[in-house]
Amino acid sequence: MTLALEPSAEVHNPDGNRAATARQPGQVPRPEAGAPQRMQPRTMRDSAVCDRIRHGFCTESDGELLHLRLYQAMRKAILGGHLPAGTLLPGTRVLARELELARNTVARAYERLLTEGYLESGSAGANCYVSDSPSRLRPRPVAKAPAASVAGISARGRELMRDAASGPIQRGAFMPGIPDTEHFPFEAWRRLLAKSYRRERGDLLQYAQSSYGPLKRALAQHLNITRMMHCSPHQIVVVNGTHQALDLCARLLADPGDGAWIENPGYWGGRNVLRAAGLAVRPIAVDRDGIAPTPQDWAQPPRLILVSPSSQYPTGAVLSLERRLQLLAMAEASASWILEDDYDNELRYQGSPIASMFGLTQSERVIYFGTFSKVMFTGLRLSYIVVPESLVDAFAAGNAELYRGGRLAEQAALAEFIEMGHFAAHIRRMRAIYTERREALRGVLTDRLGDAVEVSGHQAGLQLLCRLGADVDDRALAARALQAGIVTRPLSLYACSGTAVGAGLNLGYAAVPVDTVVPTAHRLADFIERELAG
Amino acid sequence: MTLALEPSAEVHNPDGNRAATARQPGQVPRPEAGAPQRMQPRTMRDSAVCDRIRHGFCTESDGELLHLRLYQAMRKAILGGHLPAGTLLPGTRVLARELELARNTVARAYERLLTEGYLESGSAGANCYVSDSPSRLRPRPVAKAPAASVAGISARGRELMRDAASGPIQRGAFMPGIPDTEHFPFEAWRRLLAKSYRRERGDLLQYAQSSYGPLKRALAQHLNITRMMHCSPHQIVVVNGTHQALDLCARLLADPGDGAWIENPGYWGGRNVLRAAGLAVRPIAVDRDGIAPTPQDWAQPPRLILVSPSSQYPTGAVLSLERRLQLLAMAEASASWILEDDYDNELRYQGSPIASMFGLTQSERVIYFGTFSKVMFTGLRLSYIVVPESLVDAFAAGNAELYRGGRLAEQAALAEFIEMGHFAAHIRRMRAIYTERREALRGVLTDRLGDAVEVSGHQAGLQLLCRLGADVDDRALAARALQAGIVTRPLSLYACSGTAVGAGLNLGYAAVPVDTVVPTAHRLADFIERELAG
Repeated sequence: MTLALEPSAEVHNPDGNRAATARQPGQVPRPEAGAPQRMQPRTMRDSAVCDRIRHGFCTESDGELLHLRLYQAMRKAILGGHLPAGTLLPGTRVLARELELARNTVARAYERLLTEGYLESGSAGANCYVSDSPSRLRPRPVAKAPAASVAGISARGRELMRDAASGPIQRGAFMPGIPDTEHFPFEAWRRLLAKSYRRERGDLLQYAQSSYGPLKRALAQHLNITRMMHCSPHQIVVVNGTHQALDLCARLLADPGDGAWIENPGYWGGRNVLRAAGLAVRPIAVDRDGIAPTPQDWAQPPRLILVSPSSQYPTGAVLSLERRLQLLAMAEASASWILEDDYDNELRYQGSPIASMFGLTQSERVIYFGTFSKVMFTGLRLSYIVVPESLVDAFAAGNAELYRGGRLAEQAALAEFIEMGHFAAHIRRMRAIYTERREALRGVLTDRLGDAVEVSGHQAGLQLLCRLGADVDDRALAARALQAGIVTRPLSLYACSGTAVGAGLNLGYAAVPVDTVVPTAHRLADFIERELAG
Repeated sequence: MTLALEPSAEVHNPDGNRAATARQPGQVPRPEAGAPQRMQPRTMRDSAVCDRIRHGFCTESDGELLHLRLYQAMRKAILGGHLPAGTLLPGTRVLARELELARNTVARAYERLLTEGYLESGSAGANCYVSDSPSRLRPRPVAKAPAASVAGISARGRELMRDAASGPIQRGAFMPGIPDTEHFPFEAWRRLLAKSYRRERGDLLQYAQSSYGPLKRALAQHLNITRMMHCSPHQIVVVNGTHQALDLCARLLADPGDGAWIENPGYWGGRNVLRAAGLAVRPIAVDRDGIAPTPQDWAQPPRLILVSPSSQYPTGAVLSLERRLQLLAMAEASASWILEDDYDNELRYQGSPIASMFGLTQSERVIYFGTFSKVMFTGLRLSYIVVPESLVDAFAAGNAELYRGGRLAEQAALAEFIEMGHFAAHIRRMRAIYTERREALRGVLTDRLGDAVEVSGHQAGLQLLCRLGADVDDRALAARALQAGIVTRPLSLYACSGTAVGAGLNLGYAAVPVDTVVPTAHRLADFIERELAG
């Protein structure tokens, strides 16, 4: 409703000590007859009411928002009990004069309080009074829980917080998993984004029931050539990163309590997502040929198997063909799903690229994860899933229901980025740059530390693993290095709790210029030498 | 390993019927002595081997990828048993000549097959033979499950598919929930995005442990003014849409089996996300004053209460102050969390904006959801959560672990979009445009149908609800209208299964130009008239 600004609205306050507008006895306004009538309006001196409103009302700011400040002050006074239920308010003119405000400012505040139910009003011409809803139902203020406690957090939420492993430091020498952005083709990317965000392409701004067609076609072509995939565009689902890909699989393919295998050591992020989806996660040891489930493990076959066969994270092990075929055969026999995390296949430096498990056989038990995080940039949050034919409908529906689709403008830019060759050219350029950086880091480590360390994982990706003797406390070592400004990730961080995977440091070189790699690697070698000596 | 291209690699094939390179008897290569020796190499005529490789190898394409095609053909022949374990392969030169390929092409294919374990090789100079791993372990091809079946889908996945309500049609008159993009300030948005994607701002391309500071500050200021929120920037978490916001709350604040209340009728998307998180969802009836839980409902207080108090979807009801305070008091008493979905508060046309529940009291039981989908564009997939102080740490950790953060470049563009006034200006402009479109639609409906329908929900947002008599089959009506090209959403679609919420059509006008609204509304009125007459 709109508050009338008629003079009669000011006829009020029999006890006022100011020369108020004329008023006849018995004219105290009441709620209109038809309205539910819960209480008798009570009168208070206008000056007292005004004082209570003035309290907590500050005029020291721009005029535009005064009505909001007034609204807040009045609401506070009502909720705080300073203006009890039934209190008749002064008319807008009176309050405006008292607070030195424009009358319209007061009217707007009243109107809002009326709309929201703090005030009630009678028929036209009657004044407003304070509703009794707030006083009857006002929640008592509660003592705030101490910030450190996690009161009200679910059991799964507490577990997630306990296992949280992502740290505040996401850059610097030698943070693993981070690609270079210095050489990213910004100009091309800006131009392609600008092409997407045009009035004529307004369709790209809508919700999307499925991913952007041309991107799926470009990806299918890319995967069929480089990953031997034999997939069609409709088998591809674009999602906001591999965590979402994994979450989608965990919920569409497994129920709470179902088993999931992860690699140990392995990517902690995957473990946490699977656990948060209610799955019983079992760590499976990784050796030089990748994940190595034993017959005892297979006695309880899992529902999901998360593996990184092309380049195990963080050891860099390539899953042997024998293991691949065995895994596929067992998955087939036990109706397990293999989730193939192919996160850095584009960045293989030595040997041929390893073909995907997805494309290996006619089996339909493999779901493939690819990502743009490692070859574009991590903050893009675009990755993709390739699913077997039998799961196409389920994943389309599940993705739309769980997350709703969109981001077509970025997907369109990415499709053109691939089609126009920027993607392949960027990968080629970065392979050469990363090779130089990697060799610089590897050179210092092997020159300085020799047989005392073992370097692996350097055949692909953005980082290498520098293994140390099992008796080394790699977390303490990483903490000391960090104090000296060197970012590393201890190998033991990638272990499931209660298991031992040896000691080492996972070192990202990709985002570090060579002239930083070398001196930093020397300083790190100093730390390691001291550690090994002590 | 790299395959040697020495001439001796060609010394092979005693039974060759072609004039092969010179070869001494007894020179058949064997695996080197030290290697595990599982079988005797077997010889096959070179021409037979070449034929088997040629089968399925197609040269009709660009030369660049011939080695990949050859690799695939050979792999297929090996996995298919056409080249049995132990088969000695012709040398690269022989196969190259047979298939009319460059020798290097063959060498690359061999190299890859060796790397991946399909082939084994002896000492330098010895030829390759087929490994026995594939034949021992080759999974048998399985019959594909029919596409219609959902074999392998989890119980929660099947439930999600069964309840899926998002449709392939996301635009057109009168699709609800969709804002106009014709008047979006593309030029400003492009310019701000371009500012973010620059080499000097490479930090915006990284993973992010928390949301972009300036965006959180801009949002806090905006919310404190327009929504009376009293929140600090650090209480804000930017996420990829309201579904993700809800999923995060469901997992951090509730465990499987915990109760969650939703509005009935209400947004089906929220229901599905809560169910997928394992919660026991209970529909609570909505009347003209919003959600109306009964004492019987409160006898089993829920863990989560999802409400849209400012503008209930799809009825448009505003939750009364009395109900708000009651909900807060009861939530406080029963340790429930109120999830306040404030999806379209910026677009209120009549009356003052309704203050948020979050800012209403000192209670810490409210979590606030805001979104840019309705005032920017739906495909942006950026929305935000405001959490009480006690939950700040849990939500920061949970968000990072479950989804990993990023998209800072877009967040930076959005922050400037707000700070520079584009956001407020766009909202103002769209309010005027939407008012015109809404009144055009409402005018036709009321003129043509009068008291036979009841229009609600037009005070805010992007759509209005046209209620029909409870005996009308609104799904059939919507289906008939759709055949004539008119998109509507039947009210009954928003009901939880097994409950009745009346009949009606939810009609989105925001993205429809006035000169389309009017004739389409008349055609729709024809349908409704016929329905009411029949």
